[in-house]
Amino acid sequence: MALKQYLLIPGPTPVPPEVLSAMSHPMINHRSSDFKTVMTEVTEGLKWSYQTKNDVYILTASGTGAMEAAIINTLSPGDKVLIVNIGAFGSRFVKIAKAYGLNIDEIKVERGRSADPKLIEQKLKEDKSKEIKAVIFQQNETSTGVLNDVKSIAAAVADHGALSIVDAVSGLLTADLKTDEWGLDVVASGSQKAFMVPPGLSFVSMSEKAWKAYGSSKMPKFYFDLGAAKKFAATGETPWTPCLSIAFGLQVSFKMLKSEGLENIFKRHAKLSQAVRAGVKALGFGLLADDSCASKAVTAVVPPAGIDAEALRKACREQFGVVLAGGQEDLKGKIFRIGHLGYADKMDVVTAFSALEIVGSQMGAKIKMGSSIAAVEEIIK
Amino acid sequence: MALKQYLLIPGPTPVPPEVLSAMSHPMINHRSSDFKTVMTEVTEGLKWSYQTKNDVYILTASGTGAMEAAIINTLSPGDKVLIVNIGAFGSRFVKIAKAYGLNIDEIKVERGRSADPKLIEQKLKEDKSKEIKAVIFQQNETSTGVLNDVKSIAAAVADHGALSIVDAVSGLLTADLKTDEWGLDVVASGSQKAFMVPPGLSFVSMSEKAWKAYGSSKMPKFYFDLGAAKKFAATGETPWTPCLSIAFGLQVSFKMLKSEGLENIFKRHAKLSQAVRAGVKALGFGLLADDSCASKAVTAVVPPAGIDAEALRKACREQFGVVLAGGQEDLKGKIFRIGHLGYADKMDVVTAFSALEIVGSQMGAKIKMGSSIAAVEEIIK
Repeated sequence: MALKQYLLIPGPTPVPPEVLSAMSHPMINHRSSDFKTVMTEVTEGLKWSYQTKNDVYILTASGTGAMEAAIINTLSPGDKVLIVNIGAFGSRFVKIAKAYGLNIDEIKVERGRSADPKLIEQKLKEDKSKEIKAVIFQQNETSTGVLNDVKSIAAAVADHGALSIVDAVSGLLTADLKTDEWGLDVVASGSQKAFMVPPGLSFVSMSEKAWKAYGSSKMPKFYFDLGAAKKFAATGETPWTPCLSIAFGLQVSFKMLKSEGLENIFKRHAKLSQAVRAGVKALGFGLLADDSCASKAVTAVVPPAGIDAEALRKACREQFGVVLAGGQEDLKGKIFRIGHLGYADKMDVVTAFSALEIVGSQMGAKIKMGSSIAAVEEIIK
Repeated sequence: MALKQYLLIPGPTPVPPEVLSAMSHPMINHRSSDFKTVMTEVTEGLKWSYQTKNDVYILTASGTGAMEAAIINTLSPGDKVLIVNIGAFGSRFVKIAKAYGLNIDEIKVERGRSADPKLIEQKLKEDKSKEIKAVIFQQNETSTGVLNDVKSIAAAVADHGALSIVDAVSGLLTADLKTDEWGLDVVASGSQKAFMVPPGLSFVSMSEKAWKAYGSSKMPKFYFDLGAAKKFAATGETPWTPCLSIAFGLQVSFKMLKSEGLENIFKRHAKLSQAVRAGVKALGFGLLADDSCASKAVTAVVPPAGIDAEALRKACREQFGVVLAGGQEDLKGKIFRIGHLGYADKMDVVTAFSALEIVGSQMGAKIKMGSSIAAVEEIIK
């Protein structure tokens, strides 16, 4: 028998069978009332997830498309922006900003740490002439497994008056994010993370302040022009033919998510994160991020000296079908990552640690068999 | 029982059940060797469809995203381009070009007619200083049901030296298009047309000359940067997380298409186009496009005076589940369109005409029941 596969990467995440099944829906006219009903339901689910009354627009694109849309719809070439870079996706924001000619002030944070809201507050206080038009940051940094304190950062940004542009692609639904209450102007997310559907759609919310910025934005745009998205969203449509199949899937996944409830979804992710971290400690492996800023979506693990992260991943995959993620940028080969977001539950974590105990031992780590599972069980019981 | 639905619009097109079923494939790592195998197979299928040895890049976006990518990867703001506008998608190219600050010379053709290659040749001959950097045109104009003479236009462009940028979103596989032999530099297409899969992925091919133009292009870009796509395509990957589900579907649809063979696919589309046109004439309805430039993908029909195209579409849909497309731009309400591309066969055409005979009669057209079906049968027998 071919190996069963256990997908523990931070996206694409596993998809419930009932969602996969819904995606087999035959094609219908994307401008029909039937599909408008689907889009209206999905948009309602997005607003619920975002905790917002703002419009949330649906783009047929990867999360990176939504990150780009967030920038090009609110800024103009030469605008000064403060980019908080705590990992590979922070670096991606820097690259997008460079591609579009923004004037970048970057706070680069040591990998594995979260941004210090006080430092951001300080930077913004020094900007007396209000040159900084936007502060751009991640809710959850997928590459390091770090959760930023979005609420505190947003408060500092609101005091200053700049726009807050947040990449919540991997973070949304894994930890609380109150778009309206915290005053987040533009929030990007993507379908293949905690929404429990495959990649193909991404999402952007826009506050009233963001729309005001849109009015004076001089960035060239067409496919990602949210003005067109707004016009069509008013009648439950998108300007361009969307990926209908993912929308059919979202219809089902939102039913599942809503019946679980936001608080329970956050608790589930927090519990899995806690279980994974307990397991890693029991294995004697290192954690890249401190407990205080630990992501609820993904955990970055530092294997002991002498154990190559890539070789360990390969063995887990080939022997047990357990698929883990590798390191990105400078962390490639130095860490591996365990995804525990979306359609992930307690036994997925048990599975991962069983593979890690066996493979870690084979590779020379001193591991008492069952010890990390015991630590996991203490949390999930 | 709820009405069965018969989808006869020019996209999204019907999807074979085995393709829909393949799209229920569980998620896997998009950077795994398993998925690279899928991408390599799909890319091979695309090259076969495009009749090219050039790379064909896979974008997670609607066809409009591929049209935009074609422009922003080869041109710079202020560049002069000749846009051949024969319908709504020609107008869309004008809008994209405006959004990106191109200097536009437009040939606007009466709706329902194809572009005259001689007129384009003349325009290009007058451009002695070689200011025109690209000629941008459609293979198949979806809004009017018109097929351009791509080969002749491309020959005129090649003589001049400008780039030929072709929107083959709805046309590819419905009629012959020899990317390499005809010297087409950039060709855009989309998954939801003759490829027989849902929307979500679009495609762009780039010739060597297009890559040379890329080197000096100054358009800002990130998500649609084909330089990144090229780098990742070398190892069977995409720079950003792609819509895996559609790729799984394409794997199956390419098996079906290849076993049919390019020539047979073209013949099937030509035959259906011929059958639809015979049926329309027998109904006593008008054809927007002349036989000489008739699209093989979609037919635009002018109902007799006194019959509103939108009311007729509504009745066909509500009484028989037969879904037809409406007019776009100035043609809204004046025409309706019958899509016959992708997973479309002879009996789909029969279905459409049966509904049109009944509904047309109800609305006061003088139709002899069975007459248009007889005309269709003469072609498909």
